[in-house]
Amino acid sequence: MIGIFKKEKEMNSACLVSSIILNLLFIINIYMGGQRKLSWSRRAAEEAEAVAAISCSGHGRAYLDGLVVDGNKPVCECNTCFTGPDCSQFIPDCTANAESGDPLFLEPFWMQHLASSALVVAGWHQMSYSYNDKTFISKELEKLIRKVHAIVGNAVTEDRFIVFGAGSTQVLIAAAYALSLENTSSPVGVVASVPYYTLDKLQPEYFNSEKFKFEGDAYTWRNRSDARANMIEFVTSPNNPDGQLKKAVLHGPNVKTIHDHAYYWPHFTPIPAPADEDLMVFTLSKLTGHAGSRFGWAVIKDETVFNRMIAHMELNSMGVSKDSQLRTFKLLKAALEEGTEIFDFAYQTMKTRWERLIETLSLSNRFSLQKIDPQYCTFYNKVREPSPAYAWLKCEREEDKDCNAVLMAANIIGRQGSRFGTEDCYVRLSLIRSQDDFNILMERLNKLVAEEDGAKTM
Amino acid sequence: MIGIFKKEKEMNSACLVSSIILNLLFIINIYMGGQRKLSWSRRAAEEAEAVAAISCSGHGRAYLDGLVVDGNKPVCECNTCFTGPDCSQFIPDCTANAESGDPLFLEPFWMQHLASSALVVAGWHQMSYSYNDKTFISKELEKLIRKVHAIVGNAVTEDRFIVFGAGSTQVLIAAAYALSLENTSSPVGVVASVPYYTLDKLQPEYFNSEKFKFEGDAYTWRNRSDARANMIEFVTSPNNPDGQLKKAVLHGPNVKTIHDHAYYWPHFTPIPAPADEDLMVFTLSKLTGHAGSRFGWAVIKDETVFNRMIAHMELNSMGVSKDSQLRTFKLLKAALEEGTEIFDFAYQTMKTRWERLIETLSLSNRFSLQKIDPQYCTFYNKVREPSPAYAWLKCEREEDKDCNAVLMAANIIGRQGSRFGTEDCYVRLSLIRSQDDFNILMERLNKLVAEEDGAKTM
Repeated sequence: MIGIFKKEKEMNSACLVSSIILNLLFIINIYMGGQRKLSWSRRAAEEAEAVAAISCSGHGRAYLDGLVVDGNKPVCECNTCFTGPDCSQFIPDCTANAESGDPLFLEPFWMQHLASSALVVAGWHQMSYSYNDKTFISKELEKLIRKVHAIVGNAVTEDRFIVFGAGSTQVLIAAAYALSLENTSSPVGVVASVPYYTLDKLQPEYFNSEKFKFEGDAYTWRNRSDARANMIEFVTSPNNPDGQLKKAVLHGPNVKTIHDHAYYWPHFTPIPAPADEDLMVFTLSKLTGHAGSRFGWAVIKDETVFNRMIAHMELNSMGVSKDSQLRTFKLLKAALEEGTEIFDFAYQTMKTRWERLIETLSLSNRFSLQKIDPQYCTFYNKVREPSPAYAWLKCEREEDKDCNAVLMAANIIGRQGSRFGTEDCYVRLSLIRSQDDFNILMERLNKLVAEEDGAKTM
Repeated sequence: MIGIFKKEKEMNSACLVSSIILNLLFIINIYMGGQRKLSWSRRAAEEAEAVAAISCSGHGRAYLDGLVVDGNKPVCECNTCFTGPDCSQFIPDCTANAESGDPLFLEPFWMQHLASSALVVAGWHQMSYSYNDKTFISKELEKLIRKVHAIVGNAVTEDRFIVFGAGSTQVLIAAAYALSLENTSSPVGVVASVPYYTLDKLQPEYFNSEKFKFEGDAYTWRNRSDARANMIEFVTSPNNPDGQLKKAVLHGPNVKTIHDHAYYWPHFTPIPAPADEDLMVFTLSKLTGHAGSRFGWAVIKDETVFNRMIAHMELNSMGVSKDSQLRTFKLLKAALEEGTEIFDFAYQTMKTRWERLIETLSLSNRFSLQKIDPQYCTFYNKVREPSPAYAWLKCEREEDKDCNAVLMAANIIGRQGSRFGTEDCYVRLSLIRSQDDFNILMERLNKLVAEEDGAKTM
């Protein structure tokens, strides 16, 4: 009799104990697991995570505002040469895209840093035209940008003015307007040394043919008596397309220079010293890879030039989107949290790609690459090999005058030399696109070189 | 003996039961309470909710990227005339700001719809320059914009092209470039009927004095033999500053018109019929109140004009920030979710403000307001009183030639008539700013009218 009670009692106690343990587990789950209740942001967070969770086989991604085919769930948007509902199917004979400078090579970095780079925006966030200080420029973001430059040591920002624009695109033309004096009887001559960035020619030609006249290669204007009263030289350094650290060609009281430093980051070049020119242009696109955010800035010495650029931005677009400024703020904050990791990731990626390219083309007599000398990098405190954003490919054969056509025939799209003011025996190949794009480019190049008559063998 | 076992047994059972109940409660809390675990978005969500929870007494707000004074928590950014760490202190003799058209009157709507309007963005979201279809224009957003126009019935968008820009500011000048023919020997004459929107004069004058020549009031160019070969007329309807539904003044084969319909929403005007002009410009700023997002669009009939505007956007800023496009997408989606609520809220707010203004100024002999006739509104299916965005105030006294100075003396900032191409006996007062700004404006106006010699009494 007592024995039965004993058993029952033991069983009961066992249940009780396990039940209490379960309770404790729940308590831990709720309070230690950081699962405090979220209110207004929860629905959006779940929605965003659901879309981010759509699997695209690592060859694409689904976006919150991405294409919706049927139903209301966005579909996978696949990389070039991949297709299918989950981007798992490779398109065998597709064309390798090495055309535009879409900086997708940094996408994996952000996919590895989800929590620090996520952004939550309230519906009522920053509705006003201006910030609280009546400007179109976020002071907190400006602080962060100065901090990034200080850490990398690629530009002097102390006692400098900073203006924001919709990518370096809008900043560059704003700078040209600001440097071209008002009421000029004759247009300012705009030049850039060959090979130059395509926009340096297209923008002045399009916007104001009375204010600007594009005068081509800067070298042809050295020590010329018929040089225009006022000249503006665009200096892209490292240069787009060839990655060289460029210096201004023209000098003197009538020459103003705009230094485009979009690529002056450890990703692409050694940093010999902090840049300290009168007007320097940078862009988020080539720093974090967010080209779509359209955010760029200029670091300026002269207050009058700064004020003119501010006025230009106001008349052109009433400043820069606050959404773009907030996103940039969050991304730079996240990048700084990880110390130098973003630079290490970007440099390693670009270095590896460059080495693979050199290896392949070293076997070729038909194609050659630009030579860039190693230099001491103050960021890494060592002499560094180059890791340029673009390959500046030359077709060496007499008959290959149209180098782009040669590549086209091999199923590769590049950008022909004439777009950079030089001969079409040159082609720019973008090395900063997605890993898929780069891999397919290398596949095509390997094939092309392998089929080359008299190609060297390893 | 047995009795003791019984008691113990009962106690144990009691504990067991309550413990099990507790378990069930936890299970319910976790799985019914919608508290599924969030992963990468959680930290950002908590951060955003923490900042949003900072109390600013309803006279200000703290922003995620807002000013940080010390520590790392953003501080309250107060409305005009309020100060203190929580914006609770009123500044007695402060100046009423009725100057700019900052559409903060819609902020309360978004504060009431937090969950539907919140946005969560992944760090890797839309990094590319272009969308998957190689354009700079989000197709899903374009669909949504067409849907909004269809629901409101304020514009025909079927078989029309749509281009995006950084606010109507960038869209308007892009339109002017697109409509000014290339290789014109003489500049295109740009006109607008007085009173006109300030930018219609400033933009053509600034950007390209060879392409455009601002020729002032459109009326002075009717049936004139010396009219330029090509003319562009800006038609802002409802008009900024006076809220009238404007029609084009100039007609004929050499005249192109740009219809600025920024204010053609039920908020501000009856909608007699869907607008169906060749080139119509709209902006998010005056639809949802998000001026800071810098998002505008044009609805275009002619494909050549559309292509020219696309090219302009590319050369000017490589399209519109994808962050701005994503935010617009989320906001319009949220607005549509609530049916016509945003329009009802906006209309009621503007109507109430206009009525309060009329009531005050009806007692005045010194000041008069624009008269706007009621019209049938196809959106509300009834004849509607006006609810304009701006008061177009006139100082009636001979000695009050500088009406802005009169208001300044009464501690009110408006925008003087000359900014709109007319006499300074007119002043524009913005009615779309925050409720605080409007209340203080009314306070100052009441005082001004009350002190008026020979003011009428109720």
